[in-house]
Amino acid sequence: MNGMKEVLINGFKGSAVAAGIKKDASLDLGLIFSEGEAVAAGVFTSNAVRAAPVLLSQQHIKRGRARAILVNSGNANACTGKEGLETARLTADLVARDLGIGAEEVLVASTGVIGAPLDRDTVGGAIPGLVRALSGGGLSQVAEAIMTTDSFPKISKFQGTAGGRPFHILGMAKGAGMIMPQMATMLCFILSDIGIERSKLQDALSGAVEKTFNRITVDGDTSTNDTVFALANGTANSSPLSESELETFKKGMFLVAEDLARMIVKDGEGATKLVSVKVRGAASREDAEKASRTVANSALVKTAFYGQDPNWGRIMAALGRSGIHMDEEKVSIRIDDILVVEGGLATGTDQETDAAERMKRDEFTVTIDLNKGGHESRVLTCDLTHKYVSINAAYRT
Amino acid sequence: MNGMKEVLINGFKGSAVAAGIKKDASLDLGLIFSEGEAVAAGVFTSNAVRAAPVLLSQQHIKRGRARAILVNSGNANACTGKEGLETARLTADLVARDLGIGAEEVLVASTGVIGAPLDRDTVGGAIPGLVRALSGGGLSQVAEAIMTTDSFPKISKFQGTAGGRPFHILGMAKGAGMIMPQMATMLCFILSDIGIERSKLQDALSGAVEKTFNRITVDGDTSTNDTVFALANGTANSSPLSESELETFKKGMFLVAEDLARMIVKDGEGATKLVSVKVRGAASREDAEKASRTVANSALVKTAFYGQDPNWGRIMAALGRSGIHMDEEKVSIRIDDILVVEGGLATGTDQETDAAERMKRDEFTVTIDLNKGGHESRVLTCDLTHKYVSINAAYRT
Repeated sequence: MNGMKEVLINGFKGSAVAAGIKKDASLDLGLIFSEGEAVAAGVFTSNAVRAAPVLLSQQHIKRGRARAILVNSGNANACTGKEGLETARLTADLVARDLGIGAEEVLVASTGVIGAPLDRDTVGGAIPGLVRALSGGGLSQVAEAIMTTDSFPKISKFQGTAGGRPFHILGMAKGAGMIMPQMATMLCFILSDIGIERSKLQDALSGAVEKTFNRITVDGDTSTNDTVFALANGTANSSPLSESELETFKKGMFLVAEDLARMIVKDGEGATKLVSVKVRGAASREDAEKASRTVANSALVKTAFYGQDPNWGRIMAALGRSGIHMDEEKVSIRIDDILVVEGGLATGTDQETDAAERMKRDEFTVTIDLNKGGHESRVLTCDLTHKYVSINAAYRT
Repeated sequence: MNGMKEVLINGFKGSAVAAGIKKDASLDLGLIFSEGEAVAAGVFTSNAVRAAPVLLSQQHIKRGRARAILVNSGNANACTGKEGLETARLTADLVARDLGIGAEEVLVASTGVIGAPLDRDTVGGAIPGLVRALSGGGLSQVAEAIMTTDSFPKISKFQGTAGGRPFHILGMAKGAGMIMPQMATMLCFILSDIGIERSKLQDALSGAVEKTFNRITVDGDTSTNDTVFALANGTANSSPLSESELETFKKGMFLVAEDLARMIVKDGEGATKLVSVKVRGAASREDAEKASRTVANSALVKTAFYGQDPNWGRIMAALGRSGIHMDEEKVSIRIDDILVVEGGLATGTDQETDAAERMKRDEFTVTIDLNKGGHESRVLTCDLTHKYVSINAAYRT
């Protein structure tokens, strides 16, 4: 799905350049453009410290329409105060002028070092070239330009039918890690040629994000810059979506987001394992959430994943400190289908040996049954490795 | 303070043996004995999953009196069900019989692998020898027997005056890490020859723990076995403590606990830095707590400490996701006395260079001023290193 040829979607163009924001002369500035009007939806970081591009895009997206996304890597334009917000605004204005659209139709996103000013001349100087270079095939370059410590571009596609004609969804994302490590900024842009009301697009996006990007963790840290945009230009269908078509679209949004979310965790900083932590039988939805997130973020659990050790004592201890209602003697734990704990006790060394063997795989599932009720939750996580420490202990400059 | 000769306190004896619980033939079973009656206080893990020795000791300490502490390393006797509780009870009974005291006067503590049965014959068989070997100088051996991945025994002393005569406090502790890594179990035994009411001893202990052991973090995980005991035998003074004498005792308890807490963090698994994270100017006590703990536990902040990088963007991001009331533009951050952030913005590259230089030291302080109110909090933490991952990714067997 990552092939260059396939990164196309009706009515959208893209381009990218190496503007010089990153020090290694790789692509660091990208532009996405919708040839016609498009409805727009967004989901932003829950961090109280929000980067300038987040603040500006939150203003612009209120209109529910957007035609361009300007994105840079190498600098987060976060903790940069009024100057930073002014830079975001000026660069959006330049894009709007060159494209002949309204400034409020331009969304912006950044990822990179926090607290250093984003040079507006560097960005501004590159914009005319970006606009000139726009092409249908250029979207694949945008997927590359948003990469930082990502080891591969993250692209996912879906095709469905609406009004008797095919519609498409194209998603691209960047995940955990900066070329100058800073934090696990997550950016995702989802483009579709479907015709859809803005409120329904927002619902579909919010629903998909809740079930996917909000259920992944690399290190429990949340970025100041996390941003997901969805644009839909309506070239595929002219009539309103039927209920079942809307469901198909929602499913497509979910699948694209899920696919990208898995790629992000798999490509998490230093990660060697993709682990799905499932909690079942919780007394409440909140308990299920707390339990799955506490286990998925525990440094001791994550190092045990790295060590391929079915160290369920660490899982029990994480559950115990998560603040949930639990009865130790009711807990069961499985590694994939291998039951290692039943009734709060070890099932035996044979099972542990089998589980250790299973944990040698790149992907496995830890299923915890609390046997306290009917609620469940799932979080995708990765292991905590030497490479994670190496990447994040490296000095920024 | 760690010299063998000085690990003495009036009326207390100790002994330790290599019972064979640990696989490397090092000391793994210790006994502390008060020759006379002693009042006892305890503070236990807040984890909902509590080890058998915790459950038993919580029962026994209700009486407010205790004369012996049996402690083993190498096996946590946690997640071991009724069998485990029975083992804890039986070994306490054996100690009581050999010492000629009541079973309820025996407290027990364990640290080590979770979920594996603690062999009661191994422990029981060693008890007669332990009792025979009791001596005043043997307490230093107990401090060794509780060590796991600790790189040095942790002992601290205090001397004050009550009723015109000197009284003493002797504390010993073990910190983060197991010989077969499992979790950061913290055990601490504080012995004093002071004469004090039980309720006042508990108050002094709880107060000291709250300000010390409850304010340290290595990896944010909480053990199923964390236990702090205090015994006071009353040989130093016969009359009730005056207000000022009680204050002196409380201060002594705090200083001993603080000293041990610092040693635990300094000796945290793989740690190379001891960092005090201070939050000031919070809108509420809860905010101060949340902010300091979130920063002190952030994997990204802790890897930056390891990298000696004054990466304040990660601190801002941790504050932002901590759920506190904050205004980004009011935040200041200092590394020791070097102001790196003021009004939410970088103060400059010179300050960052100075701060990076300062972070080369073994110990430094990060002071965050939220400028939102009058509340403050402090947490001691360490860095997240390659060695932490190595220790905790090692398979248990």
